[in-house]
Amino acid sequence: MHSYKFNIRIRYGETDQMGVVYHGNYPQFIEIGRIEWLRSLGISYKEMEEEGVMLPVVSLAINYIKPVFYDDVISVNTTVKKKPTASIDFEYEITNASGEVVTTATTVLAFVNMKTKRPMRCPQYVLDKLRF
Amino acid sequence: MHSYKFNIRIRYGETDQMGVVYHGNYPQFIEIGRIEWLRSLGISYKEMEEEGVMLPVVSLAINYIKPVFYDDVISVNTTVKKKPTASIDFEYEITNASGEVVTTATTVLAFVNMKTKRPMRCPQYVLDKLRF
Amino acid sequence: MHSYKFNIRIRYGETDQMGVVYHGNYPQFIEIGRIEWLRSLGISYKEMEEEGVMLPVVSLAINYIKPVFYDDVISVNTTVKKKPTASIDFEYEITNASGEVVTTATTVLAFVNMKTKRPMRCPQYVLDKLRF
Amino acid sequence: MHSYKFNIRIRYGETDQMGVVYHGNYPQFIEIGRIEWLRSLGISYKEMEEEGVMLPVVSLAINYIKPVFYDDVISVNTTVKKKPTASIDFEYEITNASGEVVTTATTVLAFVNMKTKRPMRCPQYVLDKLRF
Repeated sequence: MHSYKFNIRIRYGETDQMGVVYHGNYPQFIEIGRIEWLRSLGISYKEMEEEGVMLPVVSLAINYIKPVFYDDVISVNTTVKKKPTASIDFEYEITNASGEVVTTATTVLAFVNMKTKRPMRCPQYVLDKLRF
Repeated sequence: MHSYKFNIRIRYGETDQMGVVYHGNYPQFIEIGRIEWLRSLGISYKEMEEEGVMLPVVSLAINYIKPVFYDDVISVNTTVKKKPTASIDFEYEITNASGEVVTTATTVLAFVNMKTKRPMRCPQYVLDKLRF
Repeated sequence: MHSYKFNIRIRYGETDQMGVVYHGNYPQFIEIGRIEWLRSLGISYKEMEEEGVMLPVVSLAINYIKPVFYDDVISVNTTVKKKPTASIDFEYEITNASGEVVTTATTVLAFVNMKTKRPMRCPQYVLDKLRF
Repeated sequence: MHSYKFNIRIRYGETDQMGVVYHGNYPQFIEIGRIEWLRSLGISYKEMEEEGVMLPVVSLAINYIKPVFYDDVISVNTTVKKKPTASIDFEYEITNASGEVVTTATTVLAFVNMKTKRPMRCPQYVLDKLRF
């Protein structure tokens, strides 16, 4: 229930001259993972921003286990294990088409009121949708 | 006088699996060329935006002549040949360290009033700095 | 028959501080358009490269008509109008969810033998799949 | 001695619609920090790869403390605290023009023999240049 899987196909421009996906592109992949999970729950991050709630990334950690290649379809598995407060912790596991874990990652995002630029609590409707 | 040269070192993440710079990165290189030229004339694009003038790209054309490689230092030569009106035409010639022309490009940018979102004339101080 | 439509959702990292999609990201969108078209015809660009045929971009032209925003789903319509020879000309029309044309573009790509780095003719199986 | 500072100017395309630098671009900034440090010591990462030694990123952690803006010049301070073995640990502190720490980060990179794809020890000439 607190987890979601989303597939992404690797673009040509995401490779580098090592012949694999450039390591700096993974923050985008895990962002897509969490955004699409929220969407699947009926939460639009776009609308959240329009309503004045920002979710900047406070910290990020990535472990690169196996390389990923051009045209591969990767699955980003996004999980939230504990109830969000003024921040929300996501965990990610990326697998390739053979089901091998190629990358794991974690991020901490903060809820921020766009007008005051101050931290705020996770909105109640988000907690409800996340079933916390 | 209507032209300026700026050097850029190619980043690892700008290569692709062909072992050369990914073609989609050149719009950034020529943007840096024109921005740095304006800076050399005492025009800050950042301040221009803060004062309510936007310069969105209306069209762009790039010819890829020779590949460029990781760690290469390229020179972007930016030229304006005719007096800007409600738009400004830039021409670019990118050369490698051996002086070979590796890419040529042109862009048209429009002056837009950020509040009204309407086209506007090139500000007089920009014409003055550009010596038109 | 000589045309194909593919949808792409705009990523957060593809926006810039104007609040719209950064103009430099469109070469990626049209590349995805042509790659997915080839895939729909049973042509894998990945396999083409593995078999020693490269398709570098020789030239590119883009017209930016209307802005595109975060989370928008754009449609890239890719067309080939004339029979490929040693190069292939693609035309693109990008529309937004309201069906408005937001961008048009053209590219010329060259068929290159990866071993000899020399130009070559479009492989016969590609002509066959493209129905030329 | 085991530390180096390199300045980078923020590009327009590196911002996002929050009006700040997109968080996913920082892996590039710290990579430039470590590459330029190596260059300052007489070590070319490009040549290292040409000689068959790859340095893929094994893990990466970033803390985002303060936002960075378009046109800002940031300083990436790169440090190596312990003698490299089969891997090398870099620490980074990014400061803005006011000297404020805006980001801290760490990475672990592995020395890999490109032919065998196997881990290898840090080459002696690298240890020498790093004064370990």
